[in-house]
Amino acid sequence: MCSEMKTIYPVILCGGSGTRLWPSSRAAFPKQFSSLLGPESLYQKTLRRLSGELFGAVTVLTHADFRFLAHQQAEEIGLTDARIVLEPASRNTAPAILTAALMRESSPDDLLLIAPSDHLMKDPDAFSQAIVAGIGAAETGQLVTFGVTPDRAETGFGYLELYDAAEPGTATRLRRFVEKPDSARAAEMVASGRHLWNSGIFLFRVADILAAFEAYAAELIAPCRAALTDASEDLGFLRLDPASYGQAASVSIDYAVMEKADNISVVPVNAGWSDVGSWKTLYSAQDQTENGVATDGPVTAIDCENTYLRSEEDNLHLVGLGLKNIVAVATRDAVLVADIDRAQDVRIVVDRLRADGVAQADAYPRFHRPWGWYESLCQSDRFQVKRIMVHPGGILSLQSHVHRSEHWVVVAGTARVTIDGTVQLVSENQSVYIPIGAVHRLENPGKVAMYLIEVQTGSYLGEDDITRYEDVYDRS
Amino acid sequence: MCSEMKTIYPVILCGGSGTRLWPSSRAAFPKQFSSLLGPESLYQKTLRRLSGELFGAVTVLTHADFRFLAHQQAEEIGLTDARIVLEPASRNTAPAILTAALMRESSPDDLLLIAPSDHLMKDPDAFSQAIVAGIGAAETGQLVTFGVTPDRAETGFGYLELYDAAEPGTATRLRRFVEKPDSARAAEMVASGRHLWNSGIFLFRVADILAAFEAYAAELIAPCRAALTDASEDLGFLRLDPASYGQAASVSIDYAVMEKADNISVVPVNAGWSDVGSWKTLYSAQDQTENGVATDGPVTAIDCENTYLRSEEDNLHLVGLGLKNIVAVATRDAVLVADIDRAQDVRIVVDRLRADGVAQADAYPRFHRPWGWYESLCQSDRFQVKRIMVHPGGILSLQSHVHRSEHWVVVAGTARVTIDGTVQLVSENQSVYIPIGAVHRLENPGKVAMYLIEVQTGSYLGEDDITRYEDVYDRS
Repeated sequence: MCSEMKTIYPVILCGGSGTRLWPSSRAAFPKQFSSLLGPESLYQKTLRRLSGELFGAVTVLTHADFRFLAHQQAEEIGLTDARIVLEPASRNTAPAILTAALMRESSPDDLLLIAPSDHLMKDPDAFSQAIVAGIGAAETGQLVTFGVTPDRAETGFGYLELYDAAEPGTATRLRRFVEKPDSARAAEMVASGRHLWNSGIFLFRVADILAAFEAYAAELIAPCRAALTDASEDLGFLRLDPASYGQAASVSIDYAVMEKADNISVVPVNAGWSDVGSWKTLYSAQDQTENGVATDGPVTAIDCENTYLRSEEDNLHLVGLGLKNIVAVATRDAVLVADIDRAQDVRIVVDRLRADGVAQADAYPRFHRPWGWYESLCQSDRFQVKRIMVHPGGILSLQSHVHRSEHWVVVAGTARVTIDGTVQLVSENQSVYIPIGAVHRLENPGKVAMYLIEVQTGSYLGEDDITRYEDVYDRS
Repeated sequence: MCSEMKTIYPVILCGGSGTRLWPSSRAAFPKQFSSLLGPESLYQKTLRRLSGELFGAVTVLTHADFRFLAHQQAEEIGLTDARIVLEPASRNTAPAILTAALMRESSPDDLLLIAPSDHLMKDPDAFSQAIVAGIGAAETGQLVTFGVTPDRAETGFGYLELYDAAEPGTATRLRRFVEKPDSARAAEMVASGRHLWNSGIFLFRVADILAAFEAYAAELIAPCRAALTDASEDLGFLRLDPASYGQAASVSIDYAVMEKADNISVVPVNAGWSDVGSWKTLYSAQDQTENGVATDGPVTAIDCENTYLRSEEDNLHLVGLGLKNIVAVATRDAVLVADIDRAQDVRIVVDRLRADGVAQADAYPRFHRPWGWYESLCQSDRFQVKRIMVHPGGILSLQSHVHRSEHWVVVAGTARVTIDGTVQLVSENQSVYIPIGAVHRLENPGKVAMYLIEVQTGSYLGEDDITRYEDVYDRS
């Protein structure tokens, strides 16, 4: 890119918790953090796409529950300067975007690029070119949206209607937004050449989007400004004030601003975009055999057609035999087998599982914590085995248990263990014993991840048997 | 039963290793030992069916690999006097039945009931009545077979053709055996009322079956007799001499004797029989909703028809959405999803997995050993976690490892642990450490099962890193 080009500041919206990709995406581990396509998560792919000389430091808006995931996944790909802003509760896209704009209010000419964290772009270069093509319009005060040339009569998306046929690499004026259509209307629009899918990606100057909020959604400004004024710094995260942010209406940017503004331009983007909104969408984004079979992980397909088979565990082999139009997804603790044309109804599955009290509806087998993660390997009446990973520098709370004792065997890295005031280093292949009632703490003082196996025994093994005396992460 | 009734000696053929019920049935854990229908295995159900005042001590013929499983599962249901005979290699049914008859040669009038271990009888009382109905014919020198009234034009079974329509509770003369028919012929036979499915169950006197072998398959007698003469007692099992038994042709009882003999009678049995030969058969044997949905284990079915959903793990929730004619079976390390009409082709799946070197083709996640079992909970480059169960009285070999050390945490029961000559008791919630190279042994000296968690660390964790110094089970 030429050196005079203005820096673009990406704002990544990372608050979603979609259920249509269950069991891979769950409330406790939403799809943007999941390795759905290749080893990196959609969030990580988004961060990469919005790094480089075109872009300034990234701002991420996410729910407080996911702050450590958002931080760790950014660190994993070498991104250390992301500013992570915590939404105390999800208020949809308008308050999030407004807050991001207010954060940069003192630089009204700065360009912001708003992007969801959970979309796929197969061709990041084409995406960058589309953004560059939008800068001119944004610099003249336009709110620039990016429209995807439709390849099917999709009824699940809103459309952007233009006055003339879309021209790649050119920003043109929007005629109007079209809500999710029925299939006849969708087919008409796809045939017209003047309709693009609304990707939810926007480019504008700080001053222009603030002016638009003033004009069309002024009531959001006071609570978002207060949430920012009263925000607190918390372990490097910016935590918006819950009371103020909670007063902002939960509303989408399209509804609050875009559908009302008259300064909207559209740049077509043909970058292999997908919203990865369902298993069928993900299936469509995959390489397929001539019979339409796509596979991920340890899978064997025999005589299958139009079928997607996915196993997320190395030790869980999934076999399809004689299947047509089926999606099967196997994870460690849940398996989904569905008619691929029912992919949109996977959210019904999650509703049903919640109603039935099935833990897998929302919980994920690996529990992410500020210090790392743990997973249960084996559970019985009187004992449980966990695998625990502590990041370098990670510190668990100083705690004790009333009903269980714990054996810890370090299997990789080095732990610093405090038991009733005595501190010791425990290295690979060493073990320690934590009696019932002992006040203890686990830390990783090293430079590499530390893994240990915990064997709990006792009459009650619930996570709530914990008394915390001290916690660097301020958990109660 | 009346007190003068002659004792019947059951002979259970337990050598099969069917692959059509993969992944529940595998070479390392065949279907007769699996809890396919309810908590007890088909083998245990068979043992129960053939216990009681009608029956004498049971003889079980099984492959040497399954001797401890056969013994343990018998013990679990309180059967302690089963005589377990070990076939060094499977030679099909004729040598097995001949050997069982030769074992009782000195009591030529004794009645033998031959039964496969892996069939289901929903109505054990009806089965007993059919057996009683066969005694009279057997006492007059007939070889009595039991025929199942067909309820469908099945092409997967052989048929028994009678002279007249079958009469329940009555032994009638067999006209001839009919090999597995095509579907037109099967439909004709079902309509005739004179054809029954060949169940593979037989009742005869020792002298009569031996005479039949003399007449039609005399060449089998010498090797089977020698296998018995040179058999060795081994921890309570009777181990047939491998060299001699290996010389007997591998041939079925039908082919060797039954299809040639002219003294065959048939008793109809309508006891809810199933050979449980495929997932479709198992599905048919289950309670179903009005849409034909059958489920086993933690399963949710939404808008499914003619579908069987089965999960074998408490912590593995299986969901079916919008499925028709599908069977889905989830186990800890393998998941099968198949068109239910392709159920017969599951053996093709196993062939393919073997060809591809997929361990799950034959291996089972729980490894059964003479002393108990173990399963791997978690495996990595440098460590592995196992759960180990040792039966009361079970003794592992005295052994050492070159590449790994082991931490043992006892989580239930009490262990006796020997390390480099020092013996100690390790009880629940205690742990011991086995350094690399230490000569060690694990025993359960108690009266209840002992469970422990083993954490291995080292550069090589293969099962073949073991030097055995002593083994009560004579394994090398």
